[in-house]
Order: sequence, then C-alpha cells, then structure tokens
Amino acid sequence: MTEAVLKYLEENRESLLGKLEEFLSIPSVSTDGAHKQDVLKAGTFVANYLKEIGFQSVEIIETGGHPLVYGEWLEAKDAPTALFYGHYDVQPADPYELWDSEPFEPTVRNGKLFARGASDDKGQVFMHLAVCEAYMKTEGRLPVNVKVCIEGEEEIGSENLVPFLKNHKDKLAADFALISDSGMVAKGQPTMLYGLKGFTGLEVTVKGPNRDLHSGLYGGAVKNPAMALSHILASLKNDQEVVTVPGFYDDVEALPAEERQLMNEAPGENYPESVGIPQTSSEQGYTVNEHIMARPTLEINGMYSGYQGEGTKTIIPSTATAKITCRLVPGQDPQTIQDKIVDYIESHVPDGVEVSVKREALSAKAYKVDPDHPLLQKAADQLSEAFGKETVFVRLGGSIPVVESIDQLFNIPVVLLGFGTPEDNLHSPNESFPLDHFHKGMEVLVNYYHDVAQVK
Amino acid sequence: MTEAVLKYLEENRESLLGKLEEFLSIPSVSTDGAHKQDVLKAGTFVANYLKEIGFQSVEIIETGGHPLVYGEWLEAKDAPTALFYGHYDVQPADPYELWDSEPFEPTVRNGKLFARGASDDKGQVFMHLAVCEAYMKTEGRLPVNVKVCIEGEEEIGSENLVPFLKNHKDKLAADFALISDSGMVAKGQPTMLYGLKGFTGLEVTVKGPNRDLHSGLYGGAVKNPAMALSHILASLKNDQEVVTVPGFYDDVEALPAEERQLMNEAPGENYPESVGIPQTSSEQGYTVNEHIMARPTLEINGMYSGYQGEGTKTIIPSTATAKITCRLVPGQDPQTIQDKIVDYIESHVPDGVEVSVKREALSAKAYKVDPDHPLLQKAADQLSEAFGKETVFVRLGGSIPVVESIDQLFNIPVVLLGFGTPEDNLHSPNESFPLDHFHKGMEVLVNYYHDVAQVK
Repeated sequence: MTEAVLKYLEENRESLLGKLEEFLSIPSVSTDGAHKQDVLKAGTFVANYLKEIGFQSVEIIETGGHPLVYGEWLEAKDAPTALFYGHYDVQPADPYELWDSEPFEPTVRNGKLFARGASDDKGQVFMHLAVCEAYMKTEGRLPVNVKVCIEGEEEIGSENLVPFLKNHKDKLAADFALISDSGMVAKGQPTMLYGLKGFTGLEVTVKGPNRDLHSGLYGGAVKNPAMALSHILASLKNDQEVVTVPGFYDDVEALPAEERQLMNEAPGENYPESVGIPQTSSEQGYTVNEHIMARPTLEINGMYSGYQGEGTKTIIPSTATAKITCRLVPGQDPQTIQDKIVDYIESHVPDGVEVSVKREALSAKAYKVDPDHPLLQKAADQLSEAFGKETVFVRLGGSIPVVESIDQLFNIPVVLLGFGTPEDNLHSPNESFPLDHFHKGMEVLVNYYHDVAQVK
Repeated sequence: MTEAVLKYLEENRESLLGKLEEFLSIPSVSTDGAHKQDVLKAGTFVANYLKEIGFQSVEIIETGGHPLVYGEWLEAKDAPTALFYGHYDVQPADPYELWDSEPFEPTVRNGKLFARGASDDKGQVFMHLAVCEAYMKTEGRLPVNVKVCIEGEEEIGSENLVPFLKNHKDKLAADFALISDSGMVAKGQPTMLYGLKGFTGLEVTVKGPNRDLHSGLYGGAVKNPAMALSHILASLKNDQEVVTVPGFYDDVEALPAEERQLMNEAPGENYPESVGIPQTSSEQGYTVNEHIMARPTLEINGMYSGYQGEGTKTIIPSTATAKITCRLVPGQDPQTIQDKIVDYIESHVPDGVEVSVKREALSAKAYKVDPDHPLLQKAADQLSEAFGKETVFVRLGGSIPVVESIDQLFNIPVVLLGFGTPEDNLHSPNESFPLDHFHKGMEVLVNYYHDVAQVK
C-alpha cells in the first residue's frame, strides 16, 4: 500500500539530496551571535518546505531567541496525531582545520554525506519532511495527523521551547511524539531507544591573588589556584570512575539483572579503535554498556588557568576555572544533584583561595518508556525489516531534554526513531550521515506512518 | 671624596631621568618577534650610551637571537675589576587595558616612574651607566675597572648568554660580578641578597580520545583527560603545600636555626592585602619567609583543556595540558628534580589515557654566597647609610640563572645590589620604580664603586 510513496522517494533521490544539501549549507550555528541571520534562514527554509508540502498554519514563531517553526496537517480522520519534534540549529564547526571538506559545503564521499548537521539534526528532520512530501505528492494525504515543531535552539539548551510547549498545550495535543535526533548502536544495526539520561551542570572558579604573580617572589606565600582547582576536581571522581560526591548515587534506580544482561548483549562500539584510546574506562562494578546506558556520569568539559602560550611563563595564576556537566539516570533529580555537588565543593574550599560555583540553569530529568509499547514495537518491526536485522532496544547515554519536557507536559509516549551511527562525529569535525541510512530510514518512516495509523 | 660625583648626579637629575624615559619608551619585548627591531634599538641605546661615557671596545654582539652589548673601562690600575651584568629586554606588557598609563610612555605619578622595565631591569641598568657617566664627567676616571655585559634575552631564558660567557672567559675575567636586577624586601628597607633559587620546568599533556567527544555518547566508556590531569596534578603537592613527588626534598640543604630566625626577622610583605588573598599558604612546618627564601616550590603556571567559551559544551575533551615550574634551593640539582617529577608522572599514568611530558630545556641551580664577604658587607654599609636603616640579609625566592652561570664559570662572588620594591609590579601591569630609590640607589653605587676599589 505504500509502493507509490516509496517509488516517489526512489525516483527523486537526486533532487531530495540536493535539497538537503541546500539546507545543510546554511551555517545555522545557534550559539554564535554572528550567525543569527543564518539560523533564521534555516528556520525559513523549514517553513517554506512545510508550505510546499501542503502543511497548514505554518508559522515562524519569534521566541526572544531563535525562532521556532510550526506547521500542521490534520485531515487524517480517526487516525492518531503525531507531534514531530526536531531542530534546525547546529553545533559550531570549529576547529575548521580538522575538517576534510568545508563544514557548510555538503560533500558526498564513500557513501556518506559530510556536513555540520548532516546527522544532528538537519539530515534527520529532512527525512520526515521528504516522506511527508512523498505522501502528499502520491496519495494526496498523510496516513496520520502530524504537528511539526522544529526549533532553532537545541544546541544551546532549548530555552524557549518549554515555555512555547506550555503556552500551546491544547494546540500541540497529540497521541504520541516522534523524534529523530539520535542514532543506532552501530551502523546498520536497527535500534530503539527506550531511555535517555538527564542533565545538570556547573562551573567552578577558584580565585587566588588579584593578578598573576611572579612564581619566585610569591611561591611559598600564595596558594596556587590551579593546584587548588586540581585538588577540588580530583576529589569529585576517583580513578575507578566512581563519583565521590556524597549522595551522588542515592536516588539511582536499581538496575535489574535482566536489563543489565540485555545491555551487555547490545552491540557496542570498538572504542579503543573508534576514538583512539588505550582502553575503555567505566565505573567500578559496571560494564561500559551499563555505565553508558544506565549509570550517571560526571565530566569535566573544559578547564583553564594562567598561561597557555608557547614556552614558559613563571607565574602563579590569578584564577582557575572548570566546567562540569553530569548525565543523570532515572531516579536522580537534576536540582538535587547540582545541590549536592555545589555543597560538597563549597564545604571543601582550600585555605588561601576563594571558590565560586556558577550553576548552569539548563537541566533535565532522565526519561524511560516501556519498550513493549506497541508504538515502539511497530517502529522496531519496520526497522528490522528495512535493515534486515533484528532491532535492539537500548537506553542512551545522551540527553534530549525536550523528551522529558514532552513526557511531563503531555504525558504521551515519545518514539525515538534515530538513524544516525556512532561514526557520524556529532559535535566534532567531519560530521557525516551515511546515505544508505538516509534512504532506508525514509523507507522505515513511510511504512511506520502507515502502520501507526492503525494504533489508537 | 665622592662629593663632586654626587653633585653631578644631583645637578643632572632632570636630564638623567629624561634619558631613562627615552630608554624605557623603546618596547624591547624579547619574547615577541614583532618587537625584534625594538629590542635591537634598546641594545643600540645602551651601546651608544657606553660610548658617550667613554667605555672602550663597545660592541653590539650578534647571538643568533637578540644581541648582547659589551663595553669595558680598564684603566684603574691596581683596583679590582667588576663584571657588571644587566638586561635591556622586558616582559610583554599585556593585558594593556589594566595599565593606568601606557606601558611604553614613561609617566611619573606619586613619586614613582611607571613603565614596563622601569624596575626590571632597564631602570637599574641605567643607574650604573649614569654613575659611570658622573665619575667620568667629574673625575675623568672610574674608581674600579668595569666590564659591562648587557643582554637582550633575559626574559626569554638567556639562551645565548652562557655560550657567550664561556667563549669569552678570558676577556670577561673579573674579581667580582655586580648585578642590579632585584629588589628590597620592603620599600626603603635596604636589603642584601645572598641567595637565589634555581629553576626547572616541564609540561604535562594527557591525551585521551583522538577528538572531543559527546559526553553523553561516550561518558562511561572513555576516561576524561581533564580529570586524569587533575588527579596527576593533585598528586604532586598536597593541601599543606608539601610537594609529594618522592625524593623531591632529598638533597635540600638543612636550614640552620639561626638562619631561620634571621629570615623570620626580615620584614615581609602583607600578602593578604598586597595581592588580595584570604590568607597566606606555606609549606607545613615552615613560615612564609622560610618557604619563599629557602624551601623549594612547585607551581602550576598554566592549565588548559576542552571548552573555554561562554556557557556549556558537553564534551569529553581530547587532551589536557599543564605547565609546571619548580624553584629550587641549594643542594637540589635541576636535572635530578626534573627526572624525579617526570619519572613519578610517567609511572602513575591512569589507565585509558596516554601521558607525555615535555621537559623545559631552561634550568638553573640555586646560588648562595657567604653573607660576611667584604664585598657584600661594604655594599650593606652604603645601603644602610643612604637609606638610614640597617640592611637586612635575605635569600630570594626568584631565580637569576646568570648568577649561577657566573658562579660556575668564573668562580667569583656575585654582588646582588637590588633597588626595586615589592610594589614594583614586575611582569605585571603598572610596573613602576620609586624615584627616591632611583636617586638614593645611585648615591649607594657612587660610594660602593669608591669603596670596593680598596678590596682586593
């Protein structure tokens, strides 16, 4: 019953890829004020495409930050309504010199499309739009009702998304949410995500002397802020990857033996090879898969103090700063975890320095859905069919804060249908998306849109 | 017997200050290639001044780096010969925005001359040249033989100085060396330095994954290099300021009780006030004065990893680096100490990362001279006389590597006659030199040149 739609996609491969490349060539870097107009341009691209397809009430909605794009098609009587979410903004592309082709000049090499945003998330957003186009051009209708909400601030924390969702709860009401902003555990290995991690963050600054000091004249009188920061950071996590902040694990939900087993059966990346490390490191008592999927983490994302240039500058630096984020699991409250870390740091300030902690406003709870839900099972079936391999069910180490917000606000299941791969270099130079995932993924979406029309 | 010389200095105050300001207005920043011509210009200024005074064999000597300036006056029969060393290069002036007047537009405010190099070391080099001018203009001769050697690479490690000293050992032979590149323990408190610290350095880099990674997708599989570096750094020095590298203190010369007492009697800076810290920190079991003067230090001079911009970037950084230098005391060999730190770090590499250590080539042994030596006692007497206060004998926490080189190559006493103050902001914005120290200091030099003519 979906032959015509699939044929349309097949026959229009070239022009659809060209259109995606046009989308990817817009440098919609949301974190960089210099790209504000580019972000708007990418949003406008989405809005125009929605109109072309035949969506109604298409709007570019101002938010105070970067705009949201909304559109809806609601003529599938008796069929369920999907709320499709995605984002059209991208991470910064620097360091540019590490890219083999320009990040905003999409290039196909070895069956992959290279560009910033190819996988995260423009490429995957585009797949849904192209599938809708194919349905409309062939059948003149979609099998389900679709409300599309594509934001431009995902890479900077989706600050304006939740207020928008809250303020338009009735308008956005749906039977389920559909998001393609994730990946498979391995290339060609269909994967259903049934859980995501939460998130909290902070920045620690150790303030020592009021200026950089001569290390000879002041060494022995003045505590070194970089050394004091090292002591603080080293006290947060031990060498066995166990977070040593008191109470950090208190509310972590126990991990049933059978779920652990499933996690360990899920194919894993060959990390030493894929990222060039001597060996993996995971929390004492847990495997890498278990730690990534179901145990919380605490990571230093950045750290700086004093002289960073060539050679030597014999100073005691004035300050030292570290940025820290945690990924959280079901049971952990982001605010409580942030409090515990801040309290611990503030109650262990070394003598001779001052310590200030800046709390990151952005946070999210972890999310988990029943993997046996028919909406997930139908997606898994189509994935298995298209990729010729049994779909695995996994939890993700990453966070998609909007998922938790949708869960809380609408109380509907969220289907995370991700087509990326671990080799996509998300947030890194040479981001890419395999073309076979792009094409097979659209096939999955065509059939899934068809199948879920029956679920109510 | 020195009345005429002192009167000359008195009568020519204005013009001498003007000439020093001309010297200070040349931005002879040796570390910055953009200032190469300025460094040469400052060297030329020195050479021209020496010729004007009546020095012979004045040369600007190419070194491969910045040139050395040499000149000599050797007509004081039967009198001893002084080897006067100084430097005409300066530290970079950035951050410029923290200066209250332009760093290379010398300005007098509140009795101080503000300029980069005012104290370190152009101002103090100039005092000797002006005193020689005064002697030549009044007496037609100097009381002692003087060999002048002024380099342009002190602030970048004096790489070419030692080869020059070695290659011209006979030409440079002297009875003692004279250096004014240091300061007093407090403004107006005459001070004789009888010891300096040595120096060694290294840079530690922890290499993790081959690129910055998404902290959600890889947290739990990949060791964080910034955290691994924090563990390494925290293992080098404890919270009581004791260096915990095995054997670090093995060769440190014992500190006699009476020397400790003298050190503690020396007036100290009010550090919490002068540099804005909650309290001082010194090695367990030692006072601040003892630690600064006679105990070795290990300082982190700079540290960097991952994301340093605004807000959050949820990555596991690819690498983390720290720059470390140590100040050493008599007994410690720089090479041995460097070896011990490198061995310790290399034998404690956390699993899952690689660690590389870059050894700083630049190093120096500590230096100490008998404080009862008549050359020091005569200087102390003149200092006490001019400043109206008993001279204190102290050891410096800083390093002047040339002192150790002169000691080793020539085996002569080095007289460190410093006129700076702790408020001079060496290596920092708003470097200054008090005018009364400038004038009284020249008075000291006039009488000292006269007095040491008798010492043989």
